[in-house]
Amino acid sequence: MSIIKDKSPVLFFYNDSKKWLMNISKKEELHTHIGVLKHADAIGKEYGSRLMTNKDKYVYLLEPTMYDYIMKIQHGTQIVYPKDLGYIAARAGIQDGQKILEIGTGSGSMTSFVASIVKPRGHVYTFDVDEKFMKIAEKNIRRAGLSKYVTQTNLDLKTSKEIPVTEMDVALIDLGDPWVVLPKVRQMLKGSGCIFAICPTMNQLEKLTIALIENEFTDIESTEHIIRTIAAREGKTRHSFQGIGHTTYLCFARKAFFGRTKAKATTKAKATTKAKATTKAKATTKAKATTKAKATKKSTKN
Amino acid sequence: MSIIKDKSPVLFFYNDSKKWLMNISKKEELHTHIGVLKHADAIGKEYGSRLMTNKDKYVYLLEPTMYDYIMKIQHGTQIVYPKDLGYIAARAGIQDGQKILEIGTGSGSMTSFVASIVKPRGHVYTFDVDEKFMKIAEKNIRRAGLSKYVTQTNLDLKTSKEIPVTEMDVALIDLGDPWVVLPKVRQMLKGSGCIFAICPTMNQLEKLTIALIENEFTDIESTEHIIRTIAAREGKTRHSFQGIGHTTYLCFARKAFFGRTKAKATTKAKATTKAKATTKAKATTKAKATTKAKATKKSTKN
Amino acid sequence: MSIIKDKSPVLFFYNDSKKWLMNISKKEELHTHIGVLKHADAIGKEYGSRLMTNKDKYVYLLEPTMYDYIMKIQHGTQIVYPKDLGYIAARAGIQDGQKILEIGTGSGSMTSFVASIVKPRGHVYTFDVDEKFMKIAEKNIRRAGLSKYVTQTNLDLKTSKEIPVTEMDVALIDLGDPWVVLPKVRQMLKGSGCIFAICPTMNQLEKLTIALIENEFTDIESTEHIIRTIAAREGKTRHSFQGIGHTTYLCFARKAFFGRTKAKATTKAKATTKAKATTKAKATTKAKATTKAKATKKSTKN
Amino acid sequence: MSIIKDKSPVLFFYNDSKKWLMNISKKEELHTHIGVLKHADAIGKEYGSRLMTNKDKYVYLLEPTMYDYIMKIQHGTQIVYPKDLGYIAARAGIQDGQKILEIGTGSGSMTSFVASIVKPRGHVYTFDVDEKFMKIAEKNIRRAGLSKYVTQTNLDLKTSKEIPVTEMDVALIDLGDPWVVLPKVRQMLKGSGCIFAICPTMNQLEKLTIALIENEFTDIESTEHIIRTIAAREGKTRHSFQGIGHTTYLCFARKAFFGRTKAKATTKAKATTKAKATTKAKATTKAKATTKAKATKKSTKN
Repeated sequence: MSIIKDKSPVLFFYNDSKKWLMNISKKEELHTHIGVLKHADAIGKEYGSRLMTNKDKYVYLLEPTMYDYIMKIQHGTQIVYPKDLGYIAARAGIQDGQKILEIGTGSGSMTSFVASIVKPRGHVYTFDVDEKFMKIAEKNIRRAGLSKYVTQTNLDLKTSKEIPVTEMDVALIDLGDPWVVLPKVRQMLKGSGCIFAICPTMNQLEKLTIALIENEFTDIESTEHIIRTIAAREGKTRHSFQGIGHTTYLCFARKAFFGRTKAKATTKAKATTKAKATTKAKATTKAKATTKAKATKKSTKN
Repeated sequence: MSIIKDKSPVLFFYNDSKKWLMNISKKEELHTHIGVLKHADAIGKEYGSRLMTNKDKYVYLLEPTMYDYIMKIQHGTQIVYPKDLGYIAARAGIQDGQKILEIGTGSGSMTSFVASIVKPRGHVYTFDVDEKFMKIAEKNIRRAGLSKYVTQTNLDLKTSKEIPVTEMDVALIDLGDPWVVLPKVRQMLKGSGCIFAICPTMNQLEKLTIALIENEFTDIESTEHIIRTIAAREGKTRHSFQGIGHTTYLCFARKAFFGRTKAKATTKAKATTKAKATTKAKATTKAKATTKAKATKKSTKN
Repeated sequence: MSIIKDKSPVLFFYNDSKKWLMNISKKEELHTHIGVLKHADAIGKEYGSRLMTNKDKYVYLLEPTMYDYIMKIQHGTQIVYPKDLGYIAARAGIQDGQKILEIGTGSGSMTSFVASIVKPRGHVYTFDVDEKFMKIAEKNIRRAGLSKYVTQTNLDLKTSKEIPVTEMDVALIDLGDPWVVLPKVRQMLKGSGCIFAICPTMNQLEKLTIALIENEFTDIESTEHIIRTIAAREGKTRHSFQGIGHTTYLCFARKAFFGRTKAKATTKAKATTKAKATTKAKATTKAKATTKAKATKKSTKN
Repeated sequence: MSIIKDKSPVLFFYNDSKKWLMNISKKEELHTHIGVLKHADAIGKEYGSRLMTNKDKYVYLLEPTMYDYIMKIQHGTQIVYPKDLGYIAARAGIQDGQKILEIGTGSGSMTSFVASIVKPRGHVYTFDVDEKFMKIAEKNIRRAGLSKYVTQTNLDLKTSKEIPVTEMDVALIDLGDPWVVLPKVRQMLKGSGCIFAICPTMNQLEKLTIALIENEFTDIESTEHIIRTIAAREGKTRHSFQGIGHTTYLCFARKAFFGRTKAKATTKAKATTKAKATTKAKATTKAKATTKAKATKKSTKN
């Protein structure tokens, strides 16, 4: 049985919009507009129990989930929302043991979510250039107990010539101009590795899709995810009056090799710049494709 | 670098609706309406490479992700879709090390997805009564390489008096009448543990919500998830003409204790039957609540 | 050219959430938090012109459309929204010359919209029992200049034995329990006339659909309508962050005669009560259907 | 009572995807895969009655609505869908007596819908350049009995210097490049008249919005409309499994005059070319705006 102790993390839950995530501290009180609670009263209780405030309101003592940590991060900074995070995990098949590259740590919400899934044998390598955000992210990741599974680096992958990591299973990009880092991301991803970019605008989806083709990615998919809350009540079930607006679009793809022999492709990938990618794309003319096709056919005959 | 060998799993990918997931078998050929491929030609290639069929079509050799395994299961049986699975994982905060209860194994798609996240230290305990489906699920879970993390049991939790597992972090219910097992699920869940039910109809959401309140669950949330595909193309970006219809609604909640002392709550929970739950709910009148409230207040003063 | 005069209706438009609909009154001023405007300054201007407030904000002088009248009604009372009204008009094919029955006048938003389409040769017969609302509706309909095309009656069609109108082209029902009036609505509708009910909950859709079948309606369709606003801006086009929530579901159907000869059907329709409808529905067993089918076949052979 | 006669239009309705719209012709038969019906058997029946085919299927004899005419047009050509048409009517406040300009007649579905609303005192002026489509549209409009209220003209408003109509209440544009005709549309619209453009892509919305601002339109709104069908059945109510995909986005605006005196504005509008519009937009710098603002303020003081 999970009993709350001093220092235990607790989500004080009144309802979905009034909830407070904190660690129990014996002598502290929680002051809210629905009344006051003593932390000490929570100690010794099982998670799920409830306390009553001095204003006669019940507050539940819940064991925080990753969702609660993410929604806490939400206050004050921009986050990737659970509805979008969930699809990223499911579509890219993120799982225990994977190595994840993240470009644009932001407040660390996506970092934490992904780390909680790939741990204990996997790892998240996350890069950002904003010192202030990096500190916020570090705090958020630590609070969720995931620091061990995350390496934060202050490095601008748009300009750096360094290839800090390789053979990544999945790359997550949260930049305004994700196409800029594509050639570099290719070098860090393993063959057929997955990429996901957070694209708030349609223009980003469009530009990125063009760049993904140029950079030899396949299985490209752009989606948006709408979550609708339903007020289920006896005899009066309907969708909620409160609508949930746009958060972001998502762009997914997988690293491929466009018909070159393995050895050459690798060499080429290393040298890839945006300009070259364009040239290469142009060079993939029908004529060339046909020649190669013949060669392939021949080999399949042998 | 990940090189394809004999016996390696490969997703032969032409496009999103034409793809084949199988293990490489040196002497086999893949026969499709876009042409024929020899498995042998894939051996030695890096994942992400492509082969050309004898009809001049390129097919990519992708390393299968959990998504690919789930979508493969889809053929012929009903599955929980990635858009819904993703939200389940994100909302319940499923992560490495958790113990998951699943009632209604079905074809094993949700089982596999969840197992891939909780491994290696977590486990999925899944229950079903349909022998035929249990075999299909077993095959699907094995193919995804997850058998080690899943225990499949043929047991009807609607009628059985057995409590086969306890202290589960999350319970997933995929039954036509999820409310029937709620009292039992309570006993198997840890305090403030999460529940998710797959509810294809609004009537199920409504009935389940009522039962969740009766059975002392909190943070109840019903949602639906709409995924819209966007055709991102230069100068012509728009949503896809093909719409994606209804799959299921989802109902989430967390196990709570409604104002009883911990000890009593546990006893009561064990004895709970549907009939009793109803009576109890009725008895929670304002008067009673007020009395209890006073008692609680007194104790918080001490 | 449309020039604004004294008494002309004008929509003072600053943006979609700050706009004021009123008639020009030579000596009045419009006082808003974006500044003050003199009505007199609008006189003599062409519709579409703009004035500047004393706080340097531009306000456009627009000629009010039916949409503006409806959105004005919105303040303070519940309305049927344009997205839903539009579908009602398009699906039922509402047009000039039709006779419309409305049960539940409410604030008169749907009444006004429909009257603006069926005029000058059509008419709306609207019924309500709430004196207070009837006065609000009357004012709203008059303001939109449509009183001539609307007859408002204080009559409870749920209990009254009167059949105040017949041969209606379309019936619009905005009641909490629309199924109660169905037998009566049948008598007022012409053959194959259309019905539309405003149903905010799924339970209403379900109950009404069952009742529509019992009462011999066909082409039954339940829908919901989601409007999403798009912020189209150079290089940054995306859906709006602000979501628009649930308003209502809509239920459509057309009056049919279930396999009876014309003469009988009419007689029966007059006598129809809810109880009878149920009995009748039950009586439509396979056996009976088969017998009738044979008869029909015979006649088609002749 | 509406009785079906020889030559009467009838929608033979089996279900939403199997329905046939035609005029009764005494000696004809309707041959379908659900059996054969003799037109003669419909004569003398009330609309709403049903006939049985020789395969024992019931078919309802419905009086066609404008919706039925539009959905019939759908077969073989692209149409604007009722969900979108309805919003156009409701948002622009289309009603009896209005004069409507349509650029891009297409198959005449929007033409017919709008004509059915503005008749008998209003009129639709529609322009297209494709002779083949104009003939299709003519047939569709005639079948719906609306020829009297529509003037079809073969004229390319993109290039023509002619201003064939003026003082239009509403302009509907269904062109791939709606921005090209904006200066011309301005001249044909009355002050504060409404414009609606059918824009299947996000790129069109973006380009058009920029052009609308340049061409002095206000109240600009881009929307998309999602219709979801609900299968309402006893105890099993849910959204339909079949999703309805993207049709088009819609862009709405109203003609305004940006702070110029009425006379000047008109002159300018006439002279407007695309190039000029751009220059003008650039010139509207903050500095200039301020100057103008002062001038306007002065005049309002006098």
